[in-house]
Amino acid sequence: MKIGLDVMGGDFAPVATIAGALLAQKELSPSDRIVLIGETGIILGELEKHHADPGLFDIVHAHDVIGMGEHPTHAIVRKPESSISIGFKELKHKRIDAFASAGSSGAMLVGAIYSVNNIQGVIRPCTSTVLPQENGGLSLLLDIGTNPDAKPDVMYQFGLLGSIMARNVYKINNPRVALLNIGHEEGKGNLLSQATYQLMKEGKDFNFTGNIESRDLFKSKADVIVCDGFTGNILLKNIEGMFRMMMKRGITDDYFTRFNYENYGGTPVLGINSTVIVGHGISNDVAIKNMLLLARDVYHARLSQKIKRALSRVTVVVRD
Amino acid sequence: MKIGLDVMGGDFAPVATIAGALLAQKELSPSDRIVLIGETGIILGELEKHHADPGLFDIVHAHDVIGMGEHPTHAIVRKPESSISIGFKELKHKRIDAFASAGSSGAMLVGAIYSVNNIQGVIRPCTSTVLPQENGGLSLLLDIGTNPDAKPDVMYQFGLLGSIMARNVYKINNPRVALLNIGHEEGKGNLLSQATYQLMKEGKDFNFTGNIESRDLFKSKADVIVCDGFTGNILLKNIEGMFRMMMKRGITDDYFTRFNYENYGGTPVLGINSTVIVGHGISNDVAIKNMLLLARDVYHARLSQKIKRALSRVTVVVRD
Repeated sequence: MKIGLDVMGGDFAPVATIAGALLAQKELSPSDRIVLIGETGIILGELEKHHADPGLFDIVHAHDVIGMGEHPTHAIVRKPESSISIGFKELKHKRIDAFASAGSSGAMLVGAIYSVNNIQGVIRPCTSTVLPQENGGLSLLLDIGTNPDAKPDVMYQFGLLGSIMARNVYKINNPRVALLNIGHEEGKGNLLSQATYQLMKEGKDFNFTGNIESRDLFKSKADVIVCDGFTGNILLKNIEGMFRMMMKRGITDDYFTRFNYENYGGTPVLGINSTVIVGHGISNDVAIKNMLLLARDVYHARLSQKIKRALSRVTVVVRD
Repeated sequence: MKIGLDVMGGDFAPVATIAGALLAQKELSPSDRIVLIGETGIILGELEKHHADPGLFDIVHAHDVIGMGEHPTHAIVRKPESSISIGFKELKHKRIDAFASAGSSGAMLVGAIYSVNNIQGVIRPCTSTVLPQENGGLSLLLDIGTNPDAKPDVMYQFGLLGSIMARNVYKINNPRVALLNIGHEEGKGNLLSQATYQLMKEGKDFNFTGNIESRDLFKSKADVIVCDGFTGNILLKNIEGMFRMMMKRGITDDYFTRFNYENYGGTPVLGINSTVIVGHGISNDVAIKNMLLLARDVYHARLSQKIKRALSRVTVVVRD
């Protein structure tokens, strides 16, 4: 497969992206190839610093860059020669099989939706994060910010999308899908979570196990945890913030070490017709490596095809 | 002043409540008196175990108890002889000046609203928690669950209520009020936070300083942090959950020790015509002591009067 990397994306690009690409190249199989997308001169200069053979990679030139502060939609439209825009052009024309960037996550989402489109039947694509469980496993939390205002049917689909990802990428059999809520019992919550609970209870498209409270997020009570993007983003950044305070204070602990974002490399955009990975803005070389390996795993899991098939036989469809 | 304590409220009542009352009694001034509300026989029995003089306290008999799992409104109506119902009757008739319980928080809220009522102009009362700041200070987060569905004008009032509490209870001069959001810039967020931002920006009733992200909750960037009750509850329980995992794993750290709920004792119900404190269900004796001392501090801060005065000259009033 061919994995496109936005060399210009991320706070530490291009130094961290090229270093990460070199790390990933060593771990990928000979049939996988990384396509470096960005200013050719910069790419060759960085490879030179590592005394690396440019022939290990394909290079696609892009002379412009979308900044972190730019408005995503405007930037995608106004900068067709940016590394992100070029990456999506390559993806759309199937010259690459996956596209990954630690740059503007907004531009990555807009680009994904406009270039490769939603899978038919997906109301809103979403993004996820991994929550390390105390018992050693991993759970998925979604959405983490793509949909700050979600409707119950959108939330229902998050359950389905997360369930397919947990099964196919993280190899969890019959994943338990829980709804993040402010009480364990049915009937608790805000209007959105109450309505979502009813849909999930009636639906037969995934293994819904009820509400989960945020104090139990790490207790292996669910494999997939569904929430709206506002709540998910608040939760994710709080967890990150607490982890960073612990690191700053010199606290070392086997379990909490697993909260380090570098280990995970980012999130696929779930619900689109291709493989797009959004990395963390502060990605270092290890995070970039893991972003590229995640792109490979998500591609090989054939998520898009599986989501398409699942949606064609979905039991719950509600639109208001 | 007279502080009513629900002796039957909390997971470890009546052992922890009586032990906590004895601890508080030692720290209160001679002009303050604790009124123990509950089954007289049980109260005398517990005091006996401590070889304590029952004359140190007033005792008001209540032979019924509202359980943690009961529906709050039904329980308040059907159990007029419960310690919570009796407590509110005492409060309403001004035989006590404040009422505190670590029992059913739902019943405490319902009781508060129906017995002493909202302050005129308050759309929805709310509850708060304290967030220990890395630099040693404290910030307030509100709402933490009383209003899972809030409207922008309700959120605006939370800013005002929190500001008055921070100034008068925590002695913070001109408290900085921030809106919890998923981005720092104006325009970020869900529909609720976007609309709330505009109201807060236009209003002149408190010192609004803009959005705050959840990774910055402990970085002394704001004294009062406003969110809807759903988000606040999710956040609070996540922080508690992470703190408990740290304790379980034997991590000791000066800063994180301040996350221990025992130190704070609970939250006043903000926006009602009296002083009502809701404690943590798992309160031990130290937490009960701090709940009683908080009742004293909130009463002496004359919060209700100050909120009433502030609302009479409020600059932003929106109802949909």
